[in-house]
Amino acid sequence: MNGIEEEQTTFEIGVVVPKRNLKDENEGCECVDVLLEEFRKVGLIVERVQGIADEFIKLAAPLETLGRAAAELHLKKRTHIGMDLQFEWEEVEAFVRQPDGSLFSWCERFHCYHHLIYGIVNKSQSPLTLKFDGKEFHWEVGECLVRKLESKHFVRQVFPLHDEVQRKKLLKSWALNWWDLTDQPIDEIYSYFGTKIAIYFAFLGMYTRWMFFPAAFAITLQLIDFGSLQLLVLPLFFIGVILWAVMFSQFWKRKNSALLARWQISYSAGVDLGHKLLGMEWSSLQSPVELLKKWGTDKTNEKEAYQRNEWFGCLMRFRNDAMVILSIICLQLPFELAYAHLYEVIGSDVMKFALTAVYLFVIQYFTRVGGKISVKLIKYENNETTEKRADSLVYKVFGLYFMQSYIGIFYHALLHRNILTLRQVLIQRLLVYQVLENLLENSLPYLKYSYKKYRVRNKKKREKGSSTGKIQFASRVEKEYLKPSYSASIGEELEDGLFDDFLELALQFGMIMMFACAFPLAFAFSAVNNITEIRTDALKLLTMFKRPIPRAATNIGAWLNIFQFLIVMSICTNCAILVCLYDQEGNWSIEPGLAAILVMEHLLLLIKFGFSRFVPEEPAWVRASRAKNATRAQDMCSKQLLRSISGVNKVFGKMKEK
Amino acid sequence: MNGIEEEQTTFEIGVVVPKRNLKDENEGCECVDVLLEEFRKVGLIVERVQGIADEFIKLAAPLETLGRAAAELHLKKRTHIGMDLQFEWEEVEAFVRQPDGSLFSWCERFHCYHHLIYGIVNKSQSPLTLKFDGKEFHWEVGECLVRKLESKHFVRQVFPLHDEVQRKKLLKSWALNWWDLTDQPIDEIYSYFGTKIAIYFAFLGMYTRWMFFPAAFAITLQLIDFGSLQLLVLPLFFIGVILWAVMFSQFWKRKNSALLARWQISYSAGVDLGHKLLGMEWSSLQSPVELLKKWGTDKTNEKEAYQRNEWFGCLMRFRNDAMVILSIICLQLPFELAYAHLYEVIGSDVMKFALTAVYLFVIQYFTRVGGKISVKLIKYENNETTEKRADSLVYKVFGLYFMQSYIGIFYHALLHRNILTLRQVLIQRLLVYQVLENLLENSLPYLKYSYKKYRVRNKKKREKGSSTGKIQFASRVEKEYLKPSYSASIGEELEDGLFDDFLELALQFGMIMMFACAFPLAFAFSAVNNITEIRTDALKLLTMFKRPIPRAATNIGAWLNIFQFLIVMSICTNCAILVCLYDQEGNWSIEPGLAAILVMEHLLLLIKFGFSRFVPEEPAWVRASRAKNATRAQDMCSKQLLRSISGVNKVFGKMKEK
Repeated sequence: MNGIEEEQTTFEIGVVVPKRNLKDENEGCECVDVLLEEFRKVGLIVERVQGIADEFIKLAAPLETLGRAAAELHLKKRTHIGMDLQFEWEEVEAFVRQPDGSLFSWCERFHCYHHLIYGIVNKSQSPLTLKFDGKEFHWEVGECLVRKLESKHFVRQVFPLHDEVQRKKLLKSWALNWWDLTDQPIDEIYSYFGTKIAIYFAFLGMYTRWMFFPAAFAITLQLIDFGSLQLLVLPLFFIGVILWAVMFSQFWKRKNSALLARWQISYSAGVDLGHKLLGMEWSSLQSPVELLKKWGTDKTNEKEAYQRNEWFGCLMRFRNDAMVILSIICLQLPFELAYAHLYEVIGSDVMKFALTAVYLFVIQYFTRVGGKISVKLIKYENNETTEKRADSLVYKVFGLYFMQSYIGIFYHALLHRNILTLRQVLIQRLLVYQVLENLLENSLPYLKYSYKKYRVRNKKKREKGSSTGKIQFASRVEKEYLKPSYSASIGEELEDGLFDDFLELALQFGMIMMFACAFPLAFAFSAVNNITEIRTDALKLLTMFKRPIPRAATNIGAWLNIFQFLIVMSICTNCAILVCLYDQEGNWSIEPGLAAILVMEHLLLLIKFGFSRFVPEEPAWVRASRAKNATRAQDMCSKQLLRSISGVNKVFGKMKEK
Repeated sequence: MNGIEEEQTTFEIGVVVPKRNLKDENEGCECVDVLLEEFRKVGLIVERVQGIADEFIKLAAPLETLGRAAAELHLKKRTHIGMDLQFEWEEVEAFVRQPDGSLFSWCERFHCYHHLIYGIVNKSQSPLTLKFDGKEFHWEVGECLVRKLESKHFVRQVFPLHDEVQRKKLLKSWALNWWDLTDQPIDEIYSYFGTKIAIYFAFLGMYTRWMFFPAAFAITLQLIDFGSLQLLVLPLFFIGVILWAVMFSQFWKRKNSALLARWQISYSAGVDLGHKLLGMEWSSLQSPVELLKKWGTDKTNEKEAYQRNEWFGCLMRFRNDAMVILSIICLQLPFELAYAHLYEVIGSDVMKFALTAVYLFVIQYFTRVGGKISVKLIKYENNETTEKRADSLVYKVFGLYFMQSYIGIFYHALLHRNILTLRQVLIQRLLVYQVLENLLENSLPYLKYSYKKYRVRNKKKREKGSSTGKIQFASRVEKEYLKPSYSASIGEELEDGLFDDFLELALQFGMIMMFACAFPLAFAFSAVNNITEIRTDALKLLTMFKRPIPRAATNIGAWLNIFQFLIVMSICTNCAILVCLYDQEGNWSIEPGLAAILVMEHLLLLIKFGFSRFVPEEPAWVRASRAKNATRAQDMCSKQLLRSISGVNKVFGKMKEK
């Protein structure tokens, strides 16, 4: 394989196997050779790279191999008439290409690679004997080779590789393009990282862009002295901010569906669920005769089964949510209050520092345990799709973080009932939280990577004895292998790394919204922070981590609901703050003021819940094209279908007559 | 046509034409004869009935005639594989039959009749001369005969006829079946009256059935003396009632979709809109080539047009709503308050009576004008479907009625701040409103009918000179013609008669919910009232009115939103009532009590808006079957479609190469 061909075929998957001892090289039936042979058999292009500590197999696939895999997977793809149909390699012309010209999106390609790699089974009549490092084991008939090798710790990892050309292009046009402020090449991000990450960055960009309005408002508020009108301006700011947030969340939904329409992803909400509810997938190859039979006999049983299933699921979800909420209130709340109280009581700074250290340590442990328990809990819920499962988890874990982040502020606000103290606490938290978080999330992966490199070098040095100078990592694939993977800090098995990024955004949103009246300038802080966040997150993804596994997601899921919840919360908290502000005597009896604030609160709540009726979630053009697509298939082959159905019916009729 | 055949063919449409003077009988080219001839030509079965004042043509259609009309209309019907396809008479076996065994539902049949009757055009080369009562006029080429005759006042009305057999069956099993309380033969109602009326009665039945719970609670509250706990029981009742209402509205949605699934009506919300947005219907016969061309060139223009259209519609809707709300607040509110205040101030009973009479007269006029204005306003909105247009109207008109019904009560509640006076007012209103309304809605149609009969008889008598005794209406069709049609009292052109019935329900719901704490026993009153309502409404529809025109509607539309709005309102008003109840001194400073009530209010609002996340709107089995249906077509003819699409693409490719 020469250099020219390597440039043409981009290797997208890396497989890590241990380096062999050189003395065994000449023996047959070696694991690696079998593996390479099998990879080549399924049509993959293979390249072996010798790393310093391990050996790497880089895999690429010609279009046809991918196409055949896609057809085997019954992948549904958008066709030129705007409808999603099962992919067939023979009819490749019918399918729409991606905006960047390739046939498959990165997510589909990864799916196909996965199918190809884990689809290798022993098709011969007898088990094969494989050898590795002198040990022998049997590859049974029908067993998956890669899984077997993984269980024997021979295949250490299968991970997606960065595409160096695209990566450098993105680095230039996206991560280092600071002057664009909030503009990002979303389409390129989509084709390199897949939907979920692209949607996160689109959201982040829009959120930051919208943030400029309240930030400007807040700065004006800070700079201009309104004199006696000061007390009137604050409620105005509050109303403006709430309206801003309500409109933002609705317009984000519109933008989201417009993005999906641009990327030609269909998202018939609620239509593609239910298939797997009872574990019976509707095979696409069932003939109408079978369908009719099933439909006739099982209908009532099926309905009952579905109903039982649904209510049981509801009950379990309710139980789990109740458990989580109760444990947060009974366990976490006292702990947080105790910390806030102790911090208030203790005089010496050293003790405060020690206390905070202990607190941080315990809270880390607490959230980790909470996350583990949540993962266990949602296993008992029968959520219909993986997306719903992930959402359910996000809600539970966000509950933990919500308490952790805000209860201290609430405590201070209630204890002191003084706007200035509250403002101080907010500034502390915002600065500490955002700056520290940004530093941590960017330095931690780098430190991890450096440590791993150091360990590998060290091991090598010890093996070789005293080496000559520093060992260089020559192969790019080995460097990538040593980079940490993009996963959530709460636990690797939980979610992808977007969990942390979204969490950060949501906590920031809650912080600035819920105490908007106490500290308007927070919006300006956040706007600046988010501008840097866009670029640092981009850098992080492009340079610090392995290329993330592409995940299919059509929206930001649970996080949008959490944002909506925070808006509602912030209407209530801000009203409370306003009451405290105007109520200097400390008793609640300011009849006209209190009544006005209450009325305002109710009006804002009404607007919050009524606004979605005015502006639909989907732009009209998206809805129209969706409507066209939905009916086109039926219209195009209506007659043929009818003939086959009525043919079947006639057969049934004759059977009954007999 | 003999009696036996009449029993077999049920005549479903009646056409009213004037009675001819006997002397003209022998002349040719008479209107009626041409009409009858044309009706026979399109395949309808025709029967002429001589009435006392008019002549009637009864129409029936054999199945094949209807089938051909349905095919011409491109009617979509459910097939045996659960998917909706365009009807073809040749493949009739493929389509599912109605629960009562007939092929077409009443709504579809009416559609076909309409198409057949109004589809008669002059297909000959030259205009035909028609004569009637000595006058002559030309039936131009390509002109619609029935429309022409209607414009000449020859055809007086085309109206659906009652099916005597079915009507008597329903009368026995439904309208006079008082012992069933809330049970109704919904399926039979559906097949006789169509979806919209059946859904109304299903809603009324479920509402009444659910009403038993709070009614029982209220009666317990009334009978048992809780002593010192009395003040604690009322908030409990309030919470219970709100939870009841929230659950009711969610479970109604589930029941609604289950009903639609049972009747095999597909309701892909939001999918069948958008087609007509820009006036370009997507013909089902367009070949993919045309589709592709259109798609390619018009895409961006189309998108912009859609967007302009959407925002303009939004703006107009907003303007209209603002106008309605402003005029209600600026015109109606002062008027209502003036009446309430005058009523309070005036001492003598006679004056009060006179005032009320004047008020009732003015308010009647006011609502009528309001309704007319609303109709004008929504013409400027480009609502996408007729359903949305109707909803928009319902919201506007309900605003009027809301003010009219409740503002007096609010005035009394605020003025007296006395629970006992409020209770009195409520009892007055409830009794007067419900009893009077029930009496009126049942007697008015009968009076109208009697008056019309009387007029016809009178006219006849005068023509004949002194007649011998009473003239009997021998033909059933003439009696039906004289019955009033089922239309809204606010204006015939507005909506069907269900508007009044739903309005009554909504106003009742608002009355009992918003003042639940002041007068719990209202639930018991309403439960009794609704039980009678079911039967009287049934009687009214079956005996007092012409058979209503069937309307397609998949849900109760705007009314459900109005119910939800009333629930939210009632959370707020009940909290206010509770505050008034506990706040004996009249100042607002009852710190713990007020705070508790505020917290309760917010929790209830949270539950109201959060509950729909817990219980989905569609039962799982409905969702599953919908998902199956949606993809089945694509799966069944995926390959064939692909071939045609890629074939088209190849042609395109070649064209480009050239």
